[in-house]
Amino acid sequence: MRKLNMDELERLSPEAFRDKEKVPVILILDDIRSALNVGSAFRTADAFALEKIYLCGITATPPHREILKTALGSTETVAWEYAENAAEIADKLRNDGYQVWAVEQVENSQQLQDFDASMSPKIAVVFGNEVNGVNDSTLAECNGCLEIPQFGTKHSLNVAVCIGIVAWELVRKINFE
Amino acid sequence: MRKLNMDELERLSPEAFRDKEKVPVILILDDIRSALNVGSAFRTADAFALEKIYLCGITATPPHREILKTALGSTETVAWEYAENAAEIADKLRNDGYQVWAVEQVENSQQLQDFDASMSPKIAVVFGNEVNGVNDSTLAECNGCLEIPQFGTKHSLNVAVCIGIVAWELVRKINFE
Repeated sequence: MRKLNMDELERLSPEAFRDKEKVPVILILDDIRSALNVGSAFRTADAFALEKIYLCGITATPPHREILKTALGSTETVAWEYAENAAEIADKLRNDGYQVWAVEQVENSQQLQDFDASMSPKIAVVFGNEVNGVNDSTLAECNGCLEIPQFGTKHSLNVAVCIGIVAWELVRKINFE
Repeated sequence: MRKLNMDELERLSPEAFRDKEKVPVILILDDIRSALNVGSAFRTADAFALEKIYLCGITATPPHREILKTALGSTETVAWEYAENAAEIADKLRNDGYQVWAVEQVENSQQLQDFDASMSPKIAVVFGNEVNGVNDSTLAECNGCLEIPQFGTKHSLNVAVCIGIVAWELVRKINFE
């Protein structure tokens, strides 16, 4: 099994990436504490060609030493914007025709694998603080909550891992189903 | 949308976790450089109740300050073992009836979403070094390679994110399809 070389990977240039049609998924990061997790979100958004990232509240913004450490250059390719208030962004995106879903363990949350991504051509997903989760004021502006089923002692995944899983599941549903 | 409290999350005690039937998936970490990524693998394996983790080559083992930082206690619940040589573990597991797949970008790799998890009741997945990927000697002992489709400028996901995505996809196929 021969590993692919750089040419064979067909990595896009930053210019080609900017012009490329994106997967219509926006990430909203609501009070993420760790800048390393923010950088990882950028790297994931580049890998899956997601539309945009909103960095809200206390979430760090580029340029930032720890973001750059895990983003590996993807802050130059992925579209992003800072907004003080994630609830306002959720409200604005819903007015713009997005379905906005928070990733959170709540009453009557929708299991990730059962989420119907075809219900809307445009989806935004909100990820909250590593300790407190998505803010209640933001939850109030969402269409609903998605939950990654978990069976262990912690019921807690690292938020960067969580972003990767949800992004993959949406890409999978949108591009491959 | 009311967040679930600790009781409602139905988190298992470490004892209950140990006795619980696991998802028949083993992670093999082959020369992982960052102990933070190892800790994250433990946390993911706890969340999805995976069977075991093999830590191979230069991969750090618990107890280790940086593993503990990201594992958040899951090194106490997830079964693990150190082995010098990942290729030998892959060979041993195949002899024990496991399908062993490396996560790597190679010629003719299988796209993750198309992987048929029902072909074998027991699956092991190998994740390689952050820079060099899975060792060629290990690849030679695998049934094949899985690839996460990527569309961006880097064609590279953080290995902890990659472990999360592959673990989720296998859990999804085994438990929910």
